[in-house]
Amino acid sequence: MHQIVGRASVSLEEGVYIVNSASVVGTKEGQGPLGHLFDRVGSDDLFDCNTWEEAESALQKEAVYMALKKAGKKPEEIQMLFAGDLLGQSIASSFGLKQFEIPHMGIYGACSTCGASMMMGTMAIEGGFAHQAVCVTSSHFASAEKEFRFPLEYGNQRPLSATWTVTGSGAFVLSGEHRKGDRAKITGFTMGMITDFGIKDSMNMGACMAPAAASTIERHLKDFQRDPGDYDKIITGDLGKVGQTILLDLLREKGYDIADVHMDCGIEIYDGDTQDTHAGGSGCGCSAVTLSAYILKQIEEKYWKKVLFVPTGALLSKTSFNEGQSVPGVAHALVIENI
Amino acid sequence: MHQIVGRASVSLEEGVYIVNSASVVGTKEGQGPLGHLFDRVGSDDLFDCNTWEEAESALQKEAVYMALKKAGKKPEEIQMLFAGDLLGQSIASSFGLKQFEIPHMGIYGACSTCGASMMMGTMAIEGGFAHQAVCVTSSHFASAEKEFRFPLEYGNQRPLSATWTVTGSGAFVLSGEHRKGDRAKITGFTMGMITDFGIKDSMNMGACMAPAAASTIERHLKDFQRDPGDYDKIITGDLGKVGQTILLDLLREKGYDIADVHMDCGIEIYDGDTQDTHAGGSGCGCSAVTLSAYILKQIEEKYWKKVLFVPTGALLSKTSFNEGQSVPGVAHALVIENI
Repeated sequence: MHQIVGRASVSLEEGVYIVNSASVVGTKEGQGPLGHLFDRVGSDDLFDCNTWEEAESALQKEAVYMALKKAGKKPEEIQMLFAGDLLGQSIASSFGLKQFEIPHMGIYGACSTCGASMMMGTMAIEGGFAHQAVCVTSSHFASAEKEFRFPLEYGNQRPLSATWTVTGSGAFVLSGEHRKGDRAKITGFTMGMITDFGIKDSMNMGACMAPAAASTIERHLKDFQRDPGDYDKIITGDLGKVGQTILLDLLREKGYDIADVHMDCGIEIYDGDTQDTHAGGSGCGCSAVTLSAYILKQIEEKYWKKVLFVPTGALLSKTSFNEGQSVPGVAHALVIENI
Repeated sequence: MHQIVGRASVSLEEGVYIVNSASVVGTKEGQGPLGHLFDRVGSDDLFDCNTWEEAESALQKEAVYMALKKAGKKPEEIQMLFAGDLLGQSIASSFGLKQFEIPHMGIYGACSTCGASMMMGTMAIEGGFAHQAVCVTSSHFASAEKEFRFPLEYGNQRPLSATWTVTGSGAFVLSGEHRKGDRAKITGFTMGMITDFGIKDSMNMGACMAPAAASTIERHLKDFQRDPGDYDKIITGDLGKVGQTILLDLLREKGYDIADVHMDCGIEIYDGDTQDTHAGGSGCGCSAVTLSAYILKQIEEKYWKKVLFVPTGALLSKTSFNEGQSVPGVAHALVIENI
């Protein structure tokens, strides 16, 4: 049972269960503050592959394999797979997941893809179209720099507003039936709108995405008639330090002070003082691996009862950037609770 | 009411209604056999824009604007928008649709995106998450050649197996409530799996996609316990003449002869003898504009009672192609009936 509480805002009565999940990351993420929590840390960032793109596919494959194993499920028990990544034509997903032979829906929401894919998975299960679904996303520092900015060999300088793309993949097994051992449940969502404040700086993704996060969080709180204090945490994906400041300011202007409960996965995943990551982490993998390794753990262990998880995406391409276009943002919100 | 009849195969009792739709195409499509049926044919392929990518965004904007107008709906009455295209990071959609301010879900399925987005729209409405949704996709010959193959200025030769990317966008307004004047209804779907026969020829997309189409059509017919003859047409997206032959052969091997009912949007949209389009048309726009302008018209006028619409996508990127990877395919099937 569920009800529409606002435009693209849906409240679920029982909820959809996150049966289990897995996180696979690169070396830098393994050395960060959350390093000990990830399921697998690669010994190098190539994951035994020949190209960065293949390595990113390998991350997704490994994350789905581990999530299914931890959930005690076989690929053939999954009806639908919702997947996406940052690369052109989402090739990390296409090539990483074809071997599982699960009906496949490609999702694109830049770094908001973790939220987008889990929202579609929630709709598929809650709506009675699938019994079990897998949602997965990834990013890779080297494939993303190649896709969006400069070849690594060029050794370009990065301004302090830049974020570091997380090498990692997070996969989640969702189910409509509650079993002992399920990690958490999804009890609502708000689908985001594309929001564009006209910012054109591809080295300041936080500023590009903060308006979208503010828009989605504001709509969510209004639609659900909730205050920021109703959540133990309101968690954005990868705004970083610059984007966080803008988000808090924008929401204050709207009458919401979320400073006490705000957390950003991009700020948590690296130690900014020692890891040279500047404003923080970013990429589809950033919120996905943080959700799997840290956020769900905090919920399971009842440190947090209910959080609003809001992955944020910057809708940038090298083509649109080189043609002088702005970088619009999008953010999708999921309510995740302990069981 | 709906029931799961197989893995990612769902049969809808009442169905989801296609309230209205619109098609906007370029000059070459306007000169083709279906030219007189499209809602708007551009006077040139730039649509008053400065770049091919902006032109493709303009196509989507115009298609959504016209579809909403024909459906008698305002953007604020639509809860969810499902959209995607062929360009890296789906920029045609992001930049074309942001002005509508509708909650936005990005879908990526290469040229299967029309089917993928309408499947997600159907799930959103049938599942009770939205009252009305818009699904839109596009492709543009010039932006696609630039994205996937050679700059137009290079004037490369094209083998006879190559298809011509359709410049066009099709948009569809879906609703759960039946009103007089609705064009058709969606009464079932089968989500496709990624299928890879290892073909590496980016100039023979038909061969890359035919195995995926065969897989989805076979699964659909088995899950729904139907024969090819239960459909007036089984319509693939953009296999072209080479892909059609392969599809018919592959399905014959599986015991299904669909030759009498098969139609391919890529073969219908151009006159292969006079338009120099070789194997046929392709691109997300190919199946989308053919559905809006021709297929729905045939259904409305009761020439066809029930069709299986199977847009086909080749999961190619220039990066994966240049790294020597194969081109996997995916195809999603929708049952579309007259009301």
